[in-house]
Amino acid sequence: MTDQQCINTIRVLAADVVQKANSGHPGAPMGCAPMAHVLFSDFIRANPAVPDWISRDRFVLSNGHGCVLQYIMLHLLGYNLSMDDLKQFRQLNSKTPGHPEANHGVHGIEVSTGPLGQGISNAVGLALAEAHLAATFNRPGFDIISNYTYAITGDGCLQEGVQAEAVSLAGHLKLGNLIVLYDDNHITIDGDTNVGFTEDVLQRFEAYGWHTEVLADGDHDVVGLAAAIARAKAVTDKPSIIKIRTTIGFGSVNQGEEKVHGAPLGAKDISDLKTKFGFDPEAHFHVPYEVYAHYRAVAAKGAAAYAGWVKLFDEYKAAHPDLAAELSRRIAGELPANWRSLLPVYSPADPAVATRKLSENVLNKIALAIPELIGGSADLTGSNLTRWKGAVDFQPDGSGIGTYAGRYIRFGVREHGMAAICNGINAYGALIPFGATFFNFISYALGAVRLSALSKHQVIYIMTHDSIGLGEDGPTHQPIETLASIRALPNLVTLRPADGNETSGAYAAALENRHRPTVIILTRQNLPHLAGSTVEKTLRGAYVLSQPEGHADITLVATGSEVSLAVSTAALLANEGVHARVVSMPSWELFEEQPHDYKLSVFPDGIPTLSIEAMTTLGWSKYAHASVGIDTFGASAPAPLLFKKFGLVPDAVAEKAKKLVAFYKGRVPESKLNLPF
Amino acid sequence: MTDQQCINTIRVLAADVVQKANSGHPGAPMGCAPMAHVLFSDFIRANPAVPDWISRDRFVLSNGHGCVLQYIMLHLLGYNLSMDDLKQFRQLNSKTPGHPEANHGVHGIEVSTGPLGQGISNAVGLALAEAHLAATFNRPGFDIISNYTYAITGDGCLQEGVQAEAVSLAGHLKLGNLIVLYDDNHITIDGDTNVGFTEDVLQRFEAYGWHTEVLADGDHDVVGLAAAIARAKAVTDKPSIIKIRTTIGFGSVNQGEEKVHGAPLGAKDISDLKTKFGFDPEAHFHVPYEVYAHYRAVAAKGAAAYAGWVKLFDEYKAAHPDLAAELSRRIAGELPANWRSLLPVYSPADPAVATRKLSENVLNKIALAIPELIGGSADLTGSNLTRWKGAVDFQPDGSGIGTYAGRYIRFGVREHGMAAICNGINAYGALIPFGATFFNFISYALGAVRLSALSKHQVIYIMTHDSIGLGEDGPTHQPIETLASIRALPNLVTLRPADGNETSGAYAAALENRHRPTVIILTRQNLPHLAGSTVEKTLRGAYVLSQPEGHADITLVATGSEVSLAVSTAALLANEGVHARVVSMPSWELFEEQPHDYKLSVFPDGIPTLSIEAMTTLGWSKYAHASVGIDTFGASAPAPLLFKKFGLVPDAVAEKAKKLVAFYKGRVPESKLNLPF
Repeated sequence: MTDQQCINTIRVLAADVVQKANSGHPGAPMGCAPMAHVLFSDFIRANPAVPDWISRDRFVLSNGHGCVLQYIMLHLLGYNLSMDDLKQFRQLNSKTPGHPEANHGVHGIEVSTGPLGQGISNAVGLALAEAHLAATFNRPGFDIISNYTYAITGDGCLQEGVQAEAVSLAGHLKLGNLIVLYDDNHITIDGDTNVGFTEDVLQRFEAYGWHTEVLADGDHDVVGLAAAIARAKAVTDKPSIIKIRTTIGFGSVNQGEEKVHGAPLGAKDISDLKTKFGFDPEAHFHVPYEVYAHYRAVAAKGAAAYAGWVKLFDEYKAAHPDLAAELSRRIAGELPANWRSLLPVYSPADPAVATRKLSENVLNKIALAIPELIGGSADLTGSNLTRWKGAVDFQPDGSGIGTYAGRYIRFGVREHGMAAICNGINAYGALIPFGATFFNFISYALGAVRLSALSKHQVIYIMTHDSIGLGEDGPTHQPIETLASIRALPNLVTLRPADGNETSGAYAAALENRHRPTVIILTRQNLPHLAGSTVEKTLRGAYVLSQPEGHADITLVATGSEVSLAVSTAALLANEGVHARVVSMPSWELFEEQPHDYKLSVFPDGIPTLSIEAMTTLGWSKYAHASVGIDTFGASAPAPLLFKKFGLVPDAVAEKAKKLVAFYKGRVPESKLNLPF
Repeated sequence: MTDQQCINTIRVLAADVVQKANSGHPGAPMGCAPMAHVLFSDFIRANPAVPDWISRDRFVLSNGHGCVLQYIMLHLLGYNLSMDDLKQFRQLNSKTPGHPEANHGVHGIEVSTGPLGQGISNAVGLALAEAHLAATFNRPGFDIISNYTYAITGDGCLQEGVQAEAVSLAGHLKLGNLIVLYDDNHITIDGDTNVGFTEDVLQRFEAYGWHTEVLADGDHDVVGLAAAIARAKAVTDKPSIIKIRTTIGFGSVNQGEEKVHGAPLGAKDISDLKTKFGFDPEAHFHVPYEVYAHYRAVAAKGAAAYAGWVKLFDEYKAAHPDLAAELSRRIAGELPANWRSLLPVYSPADPAVATRKLSENVLNKIALAIPELIGGSADLTGSNLTRWKGAVDFQPDGSGIGTYAGRYIRFGVREHGMAAICNGINAYGALIPFGATFFNFISYALGAVRLSALSKHQVIYIMTHDSIGLGEDGPTHQPIETLASIRALPNLVTLRPADGNETSGAYAAALENRHRPTVIILTRQNLPHLAGSTVEKTLRGAYVLSQPEGHADITLVATGSEVSLAVSTAALLANEGVHARVVSMPSWELFEEQPHDYKLSVFPDGIPTLSIEAMTTLGWSKYAHASVGIDTFGASAPAPLLFKKFGLVPDAVAEKAKKLVAFYKGRVPESKLNLPF
């Protein structure tokens, strides 16, 4: 009785919320009300008053367009969402945007969902993080980390490639703490799923090594649902998926049809719905007393569970003080003291090395000292050089090829899944994930990289083979547009280091940017160490590497492998009496955060600036009066020949520099930094 | 005997080619030599002398890093690749780049592969195109279009999400003309596939509705292989996958190990290999006479098949002259005469309409007249408005919900798969594919969009919901960085039309760009029709929409929904005595192709320029002295409130315009177009 009343309250409230907003998706919340009710009432162990409890069960609504459901559940359970917040659904500056946003001030939203396929893939990351932290911190009698991750997903997420990548890996990794509820309502925006999605989903998941369950009547059979979830929980060596047949928009006159998916039901339909369910058709946003009482009791159960955990953790502190202190440090988001002193320092006398190799040097130095660092490569370990000395693979215990305590993840050839999983790992807490591939293939993962930025996840993307400098693999593998794409993303830091000290600096930025992702962009080919580079200068985003005594004719600004080219060009120009300053600019974003005076000291007024970067020139006009770059696709050949072909060698660049100097002879180039806005 | 000699020749030659290049992947070619030999000898029906024969069998090497195999086969069969070309593998300006590139001058390369997962997904598009054209053009007794698509794929492609999307749809569509050979060598770059790829691949494909076969010994059992392919051909209502156990680098001392995957074997190993296979260890790039003879016989068989087809087509011309003429027109790449006259024309008196709706108007006008147009949406048909009146769905014959002659594709929630399939459809020939989704989600598909551009595929991307103007769905769905990302891609045209005539112009560009993709970017919200817009002006990329009589103080340049904002701002400014020119700039790329004088007439020297675009300002400094845009993520609210919040309303823009005018008072802004390079 109470179950049914709770479920119908959710349905009616969902209809009211969407109606008032005059926008949104009532169908999924109404159809998924029973599963949400059962999950939160009987399974999800969480304390609304302490929403960041590390060992809470995680809940992900992968079909994020149905977020009214999540908002309603959080409200009913006493999280920081009021009825007024529900009434502000999809309004300016509300806490209830059109899709759930993590780190947007609402407790209980673990990850941002809505872009389909992301939530279920994040859930794999959340489950992976739990498995790893449990293996790392739990001790006999002390299951300090012990939770499940539950996700609800619709047909849409199950069609997305990112999902396929992530759940395949979850099966391989035997993540038994992951339970997915599949809202099988047979409806997509284009109509019945039979127009394009007729695969046997459960057979597919079985092929991945998942445990599967089916529930025939998800509209009513709450007992069967609870039993299926209980069976799934009992299968600890496989993730589980439960296919639950539901009716989208249950209760609406149009239930079971596409039209209830993404638009308000209308006043008449809602009025009839309320009458049908025994509610007052005139009362809006009404929650019966018994329903609040039910969920308050659920919350109290969660609070009690939390109290038990606190007691356990106190005992753990006594029994394992070092482990407890370490876990507390990580949860607090503090890096180990003095970690920066571990970063390698280089001088120009050191031999030329590829920045991907310099990145490996950093990882070798810091990986043991920063045990919250966890990650791997999308099957390019030997090329990305991301596996530090002594690394242990993250693999199922008993597999013989690693353990859950291992920190090196074999993501497979799954770039998008990797990024989405990293978002989930970071969302869990106490971990800093990284993922690696060739820079060009970050374009496979952009859907998830964007959400790293929007959700403020600290994810480190280690991207090697960053330009035509990769050589023979050719244009299919050579980034041209890629860095411009990433620079255009808000709340994300890119760094393209030029040498050893800058590579160390890139990691300093990446590790200390606790609330945004960082993309580190590295060469395949060797680069000399520069005179004048330091970690600290790198962190300013751009700095003057060298300048002539007295008057300068031109500023050459470059990033990564082109900085040493700029240095050579400057030397060539000096022979011809042209005085060039050289600016190394590893990070546009960090530079933009510097004080104006500092920025002007790097790009002083009155001197023409030439940018040099072996990729698209798009965007450089912000800093430079002219640019040398590559605005076509690359080519397949040994790298030195490609640099020559594309005019990225000292004599060709010097010619352009002289042209620019001549162009501005007798006049003053416009300032790039002192514009009115 | 000949079979074995051919296979070993391929292996030895592959080792030689990679060794000479000192770069590349010998392992896959050596392991896949038997399947390539069997496929080309016994199954692939093609005529090397007429490589563009429309009804040829298509071959795709999805594991494109193994392209030495494809280059060798094409050489042996007499395509336009000489032994010298093989010796120039991965060298500057060669015909044999590091990964296969379509439209790079080598016959027999149907699609560009190397970025994993793309080739097999393109193969779905090739098969789909065949099914559609066969249903459209074949008549009893005239199987004018009748071919198979064969693809070889490795483990890597089978881990990629794009692949999962495409093959799921292929199963749904029952594409029986698609046969995939899975090179199951148990090796990825990270080592054994058991580190991360342990799913049951065939069970997964069965879940998608594919026919599956297994071959235990792909290194030797050519008879079994031919039998398996023959069985697969006989299953005409399902695509087929044959899992073939092979040994990577077969013949090398390190066969079966990761180290033969991506680096030359070394002289000693190659010498031993040759001795083992009965070749002269001192002879390099040697092809025995019998081997050439074998493949010449194969080519002759193909030439005979082609001759038969020509005869059939001649009879078809007599029996069905209209159909034959229509097919010939399409194969020639000619659009129907006078098609542009079908494009709707609007005047400012027409009511305001969303450009997505104006796009639907265009499709309704042209879809019947341009029957080579085929495509659909990634499950957003009702939002993208891409289904024209009277459209028939592309669905299996007998499904009751469409036919293979239908041209509207229900792609499902599969953006990346959609784009890759469109590449394959265009590669087949005689078809112009389009795909649609929300603009923000083109980021899911960029891996394939990039290859549309690199491979010169005419694919039309119809992207709606192009900015914060989509409103309540919020920042997870609002593009910010997206247009800059796409603009940075070479050989791709973007168009963001501002009204009805510009939307018609966008389609004119998209349909007439026969050798590059076009991205059309459309609003959800209504826009007024502008005074002065035309199709022809749109095709110039940017044009002066309005200008004051006499002196102008400022140029306002905008795209899409912000052009009418610029017009309103100019009116506001005029009231205050500030004289503004308004430039509409739907396409940067088309503008860049205009003569310099025209460009200068649009952005004349001496007048400060302010750009207005409701997304990232990155890149605009190329044309504008200052920019109004959004360099953060968006927000969830009704659209008008968002435009106000982000300062994209006339009074806020006018304030900035006045600031810019004041800034340049008494001085001349630097020309953006008359730079030295």
